[in-house]
Amino acid sequence: MALFVLKELSERIGAELIGDPQLSITGIATLQSASPSDISFLANPKYQKYLSNTNAGAVILSPKVADAFEGNRLICGDPYLAYAALTALFAEPYGGQEHCHPSAVVSDGAEIASTACVMANAVVEAGAVIGEGAVVGAGSVVGRRSIVGVNTCLAANVSVYHDVKIGENCIIHSGAVIGGDGFGFAPSGNGWVKIHQLGGVRIGNRVEIGANTTVDRGALDDTVLGDGVILDNMVQIGHSAELGENTAMAACSGVSGSTKVGANCTIAGGVGIAGHITIVDGVHITAMSMITKSILSPGSYSSGTPFNDTKSWRKNAVRFNQLDKISKRLSLLETQHKMTDAD
Amino acid sequence: MALFVLKELSERIGAELIGDPQLSITGIATLQSASPSDISFLANPKYQKYLSNTNAGAVILSPKVADAFEGNRLICGDPYLAYAALTALFAEPYGGQEHCHPSAVVSDGAEIASTACVMANAVVEAGAVIGEGAVVGAGSVVGRRSIVGVNTCLAANVSVYHDVKIGENCIIHSGAVIGGDGFGFAPSGNGWVKIHQLGGVRIGNRVEIGANTTVDRGALDDTVLGDGVILDNMVQIGHSAELGENTAMAACSGVSGSTKVGANCTIAGGVGIAGHITIVDGVHITAMSMITKSILSPGSYSSGTPFNDTKSWRKNAVRFNQLDKISKRLSLLETQHKMTDAD
Amino acid sequence: MALFVLKELSERIGAELIGDPQLSITGIATLQSASPSDISFLANPKYQKYLSNTNAGAVILSPKVADAFEGNRLICGDPYLAYAALTALFAEPYGGQEHCHPSAVVSDGAEIASTACVMANAVVEAGAVIGEGAVVGAGSVVGRRSIVGVNTCLAANVSVYHDVKIGENCIIHSGAVIGGDGFGFAPSGNGWVKIHQLGGVRIGNRVEIGANTTVDRGALDDTVLGDGVILDNMVQIGHSAELGENTAMAACSGVSGSTKVGANCTIAGGVGIAGHITIVDGVHITAMSMITKSILSPGSYSSGTPFNDTKSWRKNAVRFNQLDKISKRLSLLETQHKMTDAD
Repeated sequence: MALFVLKELSERIGAELIGDPQLSITGIATLQSASPSDISFLANPKYQKYLSNTNAGAVILSPKVADAFEGNRLICGDPYLAYAALTALFAEPYGGQEHCHPSAVVSDGAEIASTACVMANAVVEAGAVIGEGAVVGAGSVVGRRSIVGVNTCLAANVSVYHDVKIGENCIIHSGAVIGGDGFGFAPSGNGWVKIHQLGGVRIGNRVEIGANTTVDRGALDDTVLGDGVILDNMVQIGHSAELGENTAMAACSGVSGSTKVGANCTIAGGVGIAGHITIVDGVHITAMSMITKSILSPGSYSSGTPFNDTKSWRKNAVRFNQLDKISKRLSLLETQHKMTDAD
Repeated sequence: MALFVLKELSERIGAELIGDPQLSITGIATLQSASPSDISFLANPKYQKYLSNTNAGAVILSPKVADAFEGNRLICGDPYLAYAALTALFAEPYGGQEHCHPSAVVSDGAEIASTACVMANAVVEAGAVIGEGAVVGAGSVVGRRSIVGVNTCLAANVSVYHDVKIGENCIIHSGAVIGGDGFGFAPSGNGWVKIHQLGGVRIGNRVEIGANTTVDRGALDDTVLGDGVILDNMVQIGHSAELGENTAMAACSGVSGSTKVGANCTIAGGVGIAGHITIVDGVHITAMSMITKSILSPGSYSSGTPFNDTKSWRKNAVRFNQLDKISKRLSLLETQHKMTDAD
Repeated sequence: MALFVLKELSERIGAELIGDPQLSITGIATLQSASPSDISFLANPKYQKYLSNTNAGAVILSPKVADAFEGNRLICGDPYLAYAALTALFAEPYGGQEHCHPSAVVSDGAEIASTACVMANAVVEAGAVIGEGAVVGAGSVVGRRSIVGVNTCLAANVSVYHDVKIGENCIIHSGAVIGGDGFGFAPSGNGWVKIHQLGGVRIGNRVEIGANTTVDRGALDDTVLGDGVILDNMVQIGHSAELGENTAMAACSGVSGSTKVGANCTIAGGVGIAGHITIVDGVHITAMSMITKSILSPGSYSSGTPFNDTKSWRKNAVRFNQLDKISKRLSLLETQHKMTDAD
């Protein structure tokens, strides 16, 4: 169990400490569930009501609410960011105690750095390179000539195809598939003819890829994820797509082939983005929207309809398929009204 | 091959047997495709038309249609439920003949109950506990200190992270990922800062989790699936979300972080539910709906638009983006009409 | 590295060669990124502008633009199909150098053809049959009595349950799950009662299944994918569904249980298709559409709303829930107007 004294934590996040510097902290918890050995934080004003009754041993607060709590406290400008920083101290480490577990299969010609860890029943194929401090999780497979950068961790059962380059300090969660074939087929008189996908995948540094997310390899040009990109679970990235730095995609969203999404975009859950389009930097897309054309101005974009009780929804939904007629009837009525009025 | 005589089957489901109690039954089939060694059932009245020509050796019927068939029959109040009960007799068992397959990797300090089965190339990490009768499928990985309850079966290639608690009599299908990190990041001037996910996952008894479904671990508080929850394939459960007892979610649906869904809800395929909201017990959501706010009354809810031929759809869809103007034009016309009328 | 002279390539695709038959070609690239050792192609007229400055060693062109390029060129009727054919020459092969890797677990009673390849840490259970030239990728699991046809390749970490039949010349990508249980449960007073799924899965020849796609086994009748079906990543096929020959489904789309989709259909990304319906041959469904009823005429179908900036979208979306009232107000006004007019 991780154990820190409050002073260490305050120094770690550059906070002012008011209270007992030697207090032992063994965990982080919400204000509502914290015990006296936990540190908590107040970032969202709507939780301030829980401050008075919290059992937390210490609380991280912003200067403007520093006096709202009388116990041990760490004062800093961005408590949420401070909380994020502290979570790293209490996280379960990836990797195990052995360099290469005896059950792992490492091909001749694969390079495993001396501080890397290849876990039980993992497979590293010929020509692959696993960097210092990197972890190949149990049951994961790294294909021929693929590179796993320094300190990058693959959780259990990740599949990395051949010729994929993953940068440093990335996390790839279980079930993710990197470098599978893009969906490319040419129609012919005898059905679909497969277009073998000859491009690779290039993933930058500090990228996180969620569980069961798929990042296809390029058809010809590589698929590219910029530094700091974060992808939630079950995100689909089509072949030869590109995501700019620090762009975030929530669960069950997807980008189709050859589309370029800029930097610092946020794509909410369930969004679908068509192929061969461009989304500029700083675009935000709300949940379950369908983006069918390029977006060339930063801002927030949406599609879809609000929910309703099913009975009301049915009545309104039927009208959707009459909208063009409704619009035309309205125009006609306007014209008629003007004529009548002009009589 | 499983073989039962009709008498055994009737006793198993508490049905009245009319016909040959010694008839051998080796399978279950639909009325249309059953052979004389199969038992079939009639639950949905629209299939009654197939009764007269079925080759089934026996049919499960409700009392009100008991006379509509002259062959061997089992009469009971709920033929569909009876059919469900009988399927268990003919199902392929999970597990193999060996306690721990020689290729499985079981860490020192993992506890494997004597009747549990750890299959080929599976991995059970330190501190994990595998209950009596439980199965860890081929290639599955159970992380440190995670618990797989009595008679719970993990199919092949399931990934269970550390500190996950799975109850009794659950089935987790291939590719499911339980306990991966929730999607938590704090924005900073240097991009996203990871919030390591320190909570766990608690899964009740009799829970079924479909193939490639992902259940994230909690940020701080655990993610919780109540007893009897059933999740189809590719369902996404965000960090610290909670699902009440017997709630069902169909394929490709998702619940975002910290949302609480009540008991006995049914969520159809492709539904997305926003984060930090509450859905009470007994809510039903139709396919592909987007739920953005709390639902505080039981009932059925929907969003989306009906489909149409693409040409007509395009015309109507264009009008969607004019709806506010259309509404305002209508209001103006109404006002004008009243004024005209009042002239 | 693959190396071909231009003459070989021209013969392979039946093209007329204008230029140096002995030119060495080691790769395929787009016009924009090709080097002198690459062959490129022009299929889409919008890329013709890149023809004059390409560094490609040779270009595949259709007869009508054959004179638009002065370098080495291959002239043929369908450059895109020719490109597809040539990609096969440069593709990374599946499979490894060993017949059965020593770490693979092959049960007694499994049949592995002499030219098949079972890779590291793969598992083939009793009664399974792996055909000539077939590959079971690293970490993949083939369940009891399942059949992997001649020349079919499973990538890494594929899960095939028991009693699944996969035809010849198929590719199944990593993380795909074939034959998991369909989502079948009967309601009871004590929650859901599992309907064990007793059907199998039958997959035709030349089928491609994308990464993390799930194809459930049938409840009673088999789930069936016809010859030439192509499924992108994270596609969901429900129990006892059937897809006709050459039907294509893009990523994140799904077909619910017992639905029959015809041949030569194209289902775009994110589409959801309800259960127990019929879609005839030659139907095309645009992205993210929800199909709730049978489609009995070929053609293109759609649902959903176009995207907009979020502020405008909100205004319009609110009106969606007033549509029935808007329609009725319009009808009333039309009636009133007629009456007024008739005065």
